Amino acid sequence: MGSTERIRNVAKRVAKWARAGHQMVVVPSAMSGETNRLLGLAKELAPSKTSAAYNRELDMLAATGEQASSALLAIALQAEGMESVSYAGWQVPIRTNSAYTKARIESIEDERVRADLKAGKVVIVTGFQGVDEDDNITTLGRGGSDTSAVAVAAALKASECLIYTDVDGVYTTDPRVVPEARRLQTVSFEEMLEMASMGSKVLQIRSVEFAGKYKVPLRVLSSFTPWDIDLDEEAKSGTLITFEEDEQMEQAIVSGIAFNRDEAKISILGVPDKPGIAYQILGAVADANIEVDVIIQNVSKDGRTDFSFTVHRNDYAKTIDLLKEKVLPGLGAQEVVGDAKICKVSIVGIGMRSHVGVASKMFRCLSEEGINIQMISTSEIKTSVVLDEKYMELAVRALHRVFDLDQPAAA
Amino acid sequence: MGSTERIRNVAKRVAKWARAGHQMVVVPSAMSGETNRLLGLAKELAPSKTSAAYNRELDMLAATGEQASSALLAIALQAEGMESVSYAGWQVPIRTNSAYTKARIESIEDERVRADLKAGKVVIVTGFQGVDEDDNITTLGRGGSDTSAVAVAAALKASECLIYTDVDGVYTTDPRVVPEARRLQTVSFEEMLEMASMGSKVLQIRSVEFAGKYKVPLRVLSSFTPWDIDLDEEAKSGTLITFEEDEQMEQAIVSGIAFNRDEAKISILGVPDKPGIAYQILGAVADANIEVDVIIQNVSKDGRTDFSFTVHRNDYAKTIDLLKEKVLPGLGAQEVVGDAKICKVSIVGIGMRSHVGVASKMFRCLSEEGINIQMISTSEIKTSVVLDEKYMELAVRALHRVFDLDQPAAA
Repeated sequence: MGSTERIRNVAKRVAKWARAGHQMVVVPSAMSGETNRLLGLAKELAPSKTSAAYNRELDMLAATGEQASSALLAIALQAEGMESVSYAGWQVPIRTNSAYTKARIESIEDERVRADLKAGKVVIVTGFQGVDEDDNITTLGRGGSDTSAVAVAAALKASECLIYTDVDGVYTTDPRVVPEARRLQTVSFEEMLEMASMGSKVLQIRSVEFAGKYKVPLRVLSSFTPWDIDLDEEAKSGTLITFEEDEQMEQAIVSGIAFNRDEAKISILGVPDKPGIAYQILGAVADANIEVDVIIQNVSKDGRTDFSFTVHRNDYAKTIDLLKEKVLPGLGAQEVVGDAKICKVSIVGIGMRSHVGVASKMFRCLSEEGINIQMISTSEIKTSVVLDEKYMELAVRALHRVFDLDQPAAA
Repeated sequence: MGSTERIRNVAKRVAKWARAGHQMVVVPSAMSGETNRLLGLAKELAPSKTSAAYNRELDMLAATGEQASSALLAIALQAEGMESVSYAGWQVPIRTNSAYTKARIESIEDERVRADLKAGKVVIVTGFQGVDEDDNITTLGRGGSDTSAVAVAAALKASECLIYTDVDGVYTTDPRVVPEARRLQTVSFEEMLEMASMGSKVLQIRSVEFAGKYKVPLRVLSSFTPWDIDLDEEAKSGTLITFEEDEQMEQAIVSGIAFNRDEAKISILGVPDKPGIAYQILGAVADANIEVDVIIQNVSKDGRTDFSFTVHRNDYAKTIDLLKEKVLPGLGAQEVVGDAKICKVSIVGIGMRSHVGVASKMFRCLSEEGINIQMISTSEIKTSVVLDEKYMELAVRALHRVFDLDQPAAA
């Protein structure tokens, strides 16, 4: 939410839905720039601090941004003549673990919210935040408002969760890279999950996971749509993320191309090939709260193997240090090497399951463009490759064309 | 607290005290301008809203300002190498009633704070706010941070509560009106109470009441004192508000002149003089959450009397309407009249109890200046007069001179 003008428009939009008979729970984000402003103040005071005690205070601080916008939205709704009440995360409560700055939701009590809905109120639930078992305020990390919204929708068994973003839906790929990219009317939960995790950035991956786990129909639509458009029209806009496979009418082989350059690859070379190695390496990484994405271990040679994985680029140096100090000495491995200048490009599609040759078509396309593939990782509905980051746009455009994503889907 | 620079200075000052062996609990105010900014946003969205539901949201909104500055102060202390943790009002918890925007503290649990102090941490308690029995966030109203600080000091049985303000102590009167005004080294709790309630504005009256009720020694001192002055020197600066009468060495007859023009007077004329009248009038006013200050009822004539009182000037129109609509019809009174252009000037002093003629000296002084007295009200240690507001400065200067307040107190 931006200015008070935008808050007022959100209130009018919500009032339109509520007046049409829908029970509404709204999870607003902070006013734009507010979270950065607050964290900037903390940075000024403690430029290089990191500790659990420090992160706890960052959460106390950052949580105020959403609390303020929640109260303002409730006020704007009251000014529209709607009964409305706002709750901070701890008031619902939204229970999380204690991983400050990136906490995970554990449970949501719905009693208070349900009572208000029954009483005809529009309920504002403050997103991005929760409370741990010792009543410390936690935040879910960037984009956490989406996750909160989905989690609340799941707890209340909402008929649909509308996520208003700055894009009008999910595209076959990023239109800034491929101008021919098309908006998808529907996308399956699995595809969306792969696209989000691959960096299509429309929604935070955790929000999609939550939606899938609790089967919350999720619609991504644009917050720039005028608030007073016809309700039925609005209800059909954006992209619906479905979780029932047979709802998926438009079953293209490949639905979209995802990509990102937020990752870095790390390899441990000459690891003795014996049981427990993967845990010994990745256990230490997980204990340091570093998230790992692609993991590859190839067959061994002479009793030794190479173990590779990718992490967020921000965690690259920390991970390398951690491995050198804590993991390598006990492992008998030869060396840690890495590269932060990589990108990952993935083709995603439910239809891939039943079609052979999709991956080889991808590899051929990249080969024809002269692009070397550094790592390959596949799942049932996705094939990802790690490339030198300079090839990212070229690879995405070529794949978009090869898989006919610029053409309207066949009926 | 103003900029991060000021927060850093507060942290250095607190660290100085803590390193000298004091267990420290700090109650910061919001960053300057923040509360006004937040309430300004609410005003933009709902220019003329008033309701309990609206006030609840105002409190949700305003409470974020102090929560942010508390977290920032904890971060600044951590950057100074101190262990520090901040708590929102609900986390302590500071329990209040549900009078949103002007709630009253009912109890404070000290367990969590004590445990942290014992563990060597500096504890930041978010001021100005609390939580009601239904877990709604409440605020104490403007200046509520002082009240929070005193209440926390009382709950923890602190040896002294230091209130850092923008003045360096309590003066015989406002130096902007009387340049000869002197700073008092000590002032009794009762005098301070009268001065605060009379509008000397150094401290919020409720904070002084709290200090008196729980006998918390209170020191008012300047936040502009450099943080690195000698600790003993700082410990003796400002004005100490004492609650033990025999601690009061400097027992002047009149300690100070208080004044304000925030009030309006209201009179109900021709009230039948029978039991229950005062309650009938003021009960309705209290029910509307309007605070009444001076109350005067003179002897009756012909079975009828005139009943006068003063309220805050902001409540003037509301009170007049209330009386006309709800009170007058059932009262058989003749008329409600009022005047918002008044001021109240008071002489305050513990010594007045044992000295006759102090009030008459005040009245003679005002008479010699040609100032008409509209109302008179007295207590053991104070005499207040209500005057036309245009005479305020003249009256204060004349009284300051007549009672020798510009002279250093005799030993």
